[in-house]
Amino acid sequence: MNNEHLNRIGKLQAAMAAANVDAVFLYSTVNRNYFTGLTTSNGLLLVEQQGTPVFYTDFRYLEVAHRVLKGMDIRKFKPAKEQLADYAAAAKSWKTIGYEGNLTVAQFLPLQEAMSGAKWVSVSAMVSTLRAVKTAGEIDAIRRSAAANDALFADLMDTFKVGMSELEMLRQFRMKLAARGLTESFSPILCAGVNAVECHHQPDETVLQPNSELLIDMGVVVDDYCSDMTRTVFFGTPTARFREIHKIVLEANLAAKAAVKPGVRCCDIDAVARNIIKDYGYGEYFDHSLGHSVGLEVHEQPAFAATCETVLEPGMIITNEPGIYIPGDTGVRIEDLLLITEDGCESLSHTPHEIVIPC
Amino acid sequence: MNNEHLNRIGKLQAAMAAANVDAVFLYSTVNRNYFTGLTTSNGLLLVEQQGTPVFYTDFRYLEVAHRVLKGMDIRKFKPAKEQLADYAAAAKSWKTIGYEGNLTVAQFLPLQEAMSGAKWVSVSAMVSTLRAVKTAGEIDAIRRSAAANDALFADLMDTFKVGMSELEMLRQFRMKLAARGLTESFSPILCAGVNAVECHHQPDETVLQPNSELLIDMGVVVDDYCSDMTRTVFFGTPTARFREIHKIVLEANLAAKAAVKPGVRCCDIDAVARNIIKDYGYGEYFDHSLGHSVGLEVHEQPAFAATCETVLEPGMIITNEPGIYIPGDTGVRIEDLLLITEDGCESLSHTPHEIVIPC
Repeated sequence: MNNEHLNRIGKLQAAMAAANVDAVFLYSTVNRNYFTGLTTSNGLLLVEQQGTPVFYTDFRYLEVAHRVLKGMDIRKFKPAKEQLADYAAAAKSWKTIGYEGNLTVAQFLPLQEAMSGAKWVSVSAMVSTLRAVKTAGEIDAIRRSAAANDALFADLMDTFKVGMSELEMLRQFRMKLAARGLTESFSPILCAGVNAVECHHQPDETVLQPNSELLIDMGVVVDDYCSDMTRTVFFGTPTARFREIHKIVLEANLAAKAAVKPGVRCCDIDAVARNIIKDYGYGEYFDHSLGHSVGLEVHEQPAFAATCETVLEPGMIITNEPGIYIPGDTGVRIEDLLLITEDGCESLSHTPHEIVIPC
Repeated sequence: MNNEHLNRIGKLQAAMAAANVDAVFLYSTVNRNYFTGLTTSNGLLLVEQQGTPVFYTDFRYLEVAHRVLKGMDIRKFKPAKEQLADYAAAAKSWKTIGYEGNLTVAQFLPLQEAMSGAKWVSVSAMVSTLRAVKTAGEIDAIRRSAAANDALFADLMDTFKVGMSELEMLRQFRMKLAARGLTESFSPILCAGVNAVECHHQPDETVLQPNSELLIDMGVVVDDYCSDMTRTVFFGTPTARFREIHKIVLEANLAAKAAVKPGVRCCDIDAVARNIIKDYGYGEYFDHSLGHSVGLEVHEQPAFAATCETVLEPGMIITNEPGIYIPGDTGVRIEDLLLITEDGCESLSHTPHEIVIPC
């Protein structure tokens, strides 16, 4: 925990004041991490509009909480009923209480019942908005995460060979990941040949054949921050069909990137890529959004999606991942991580877009 | 998906009939896996008391759903409002609808609002009860998971040395894990020296010193099933203090194991271990429950806990993990995975309890 975390709590309290939310219950590990820098499997950060936030946890994490969290009131969770009674006593001065949309029903309903006099509102959008614009420290971590992902990808390109199964490639990915002291930001997607058309295929015994494609969607975690990148590589001599589809997807990717700058709406960036793919007649085969933000989680808000009207700001970090998936035929996705800058954007992914490996 | 999964759905429908629950919404990945054998990041299994269950998912998983799920109605999720209207139309014949306690509030509230005429009840306990007694196939998978964990542990004992940091040991763990094609059932706990008193310590730069202890709590996943085991190893010549604490914890572990058999309540097993530790004067330093069930998740119900009155049945698989953690001094935990049998129990963990490594 450092000044950056205290600053984030200050911004949350300002947003709470603007929205007339008196107190916010933050249970999720990732939000507690965002506002304190401490990761524990169990805890609650209770923030009032004014005053010192309270961090509750169980006996397992009290020691580390006292060591790491400065400027917070640290308390051990009491047995459930007593704890609810404590909240209820404090809640007498709260008219509106915020909860996270990903709170479980089993946690939420007892809170709502114990503090039924208050109005309960989701603060997911409020917190997402705070988390959307990354600080310098966060940008640095994501930059290093993307660089580590590039380096791992290059290593894999020297390792993956025709004749390997997807599961063997997964094993190689995880060995190299572990050797580098990294963890994955999601279970990597490795699709050999026609499996690339199932854009979230799970690795299986399928063997990579000569003169076929391999779709690799992977990311790592560095200092709690995720990266995410996709390349569709060809082993052997690319077919005319593959070259055609890859060229269109790359055109969509580059056009979207060129359109990214502060002041533009997310949905308009999605449309740039989508219209190109539509114009080539493949619109029906691009059945997902163009991208999502990345940070402590690999999927954050805002998103390059038809429904997302958020206006881009410097410091946002969003994937740009158009794809075309033609059933029984060819699947291509090309994904970069874009940092929105003062006058445009910068790709944090430095792996070449076109990779052909002789076999 | 096979007959075992259809059999599980049949048991769920029987439990729903007994509890007068007309329909159950199962969103969690793990419950969908339990009842279908298919793992997807997105989906809903909608089960009515009678008739064919419906599996909803998005475009990414439709192909695999059609390939794998037999005897189910497979549908693509519609846009949210249309989908809710479909559920609401079906719900006209439902008086009581079941939800999972770990459903998110953001998912639950729109469902509840769209089907406000029905009574909503948590089916977490109902599903936990079904999942508590493992089938032969599940027992086989957990047995193999525990064996793989034993083998990995033995490999680590040849690798971990005085002078290594906890983070380096974590790196070694993950490289060996990946080389074996396994994943971890939880992030392993590696505590060198006095860190063992923080019983859920996160690995850091602490270096393992000569004549000190190392607490290792680890598990792997085999065919979707978890294992979990803890050993507290000594590098060098054990101190009198370590031998004393280790002996008491082992006595508690063995006494609890000897007491386990069908018909006994979980809380009574917890009490057996707890009373031994209390009688030696260390009761205040054993501040967690004795154990938890293990299956598709590493923490399931029932638990060897003071508050759990569930009666043991053959086929349950529960950890037995007493511990003593004296702040600033010594921490010891010894954890085995116990399969409840017809006349007692069998430990699925075959690593020796006492391990001393010369240094």
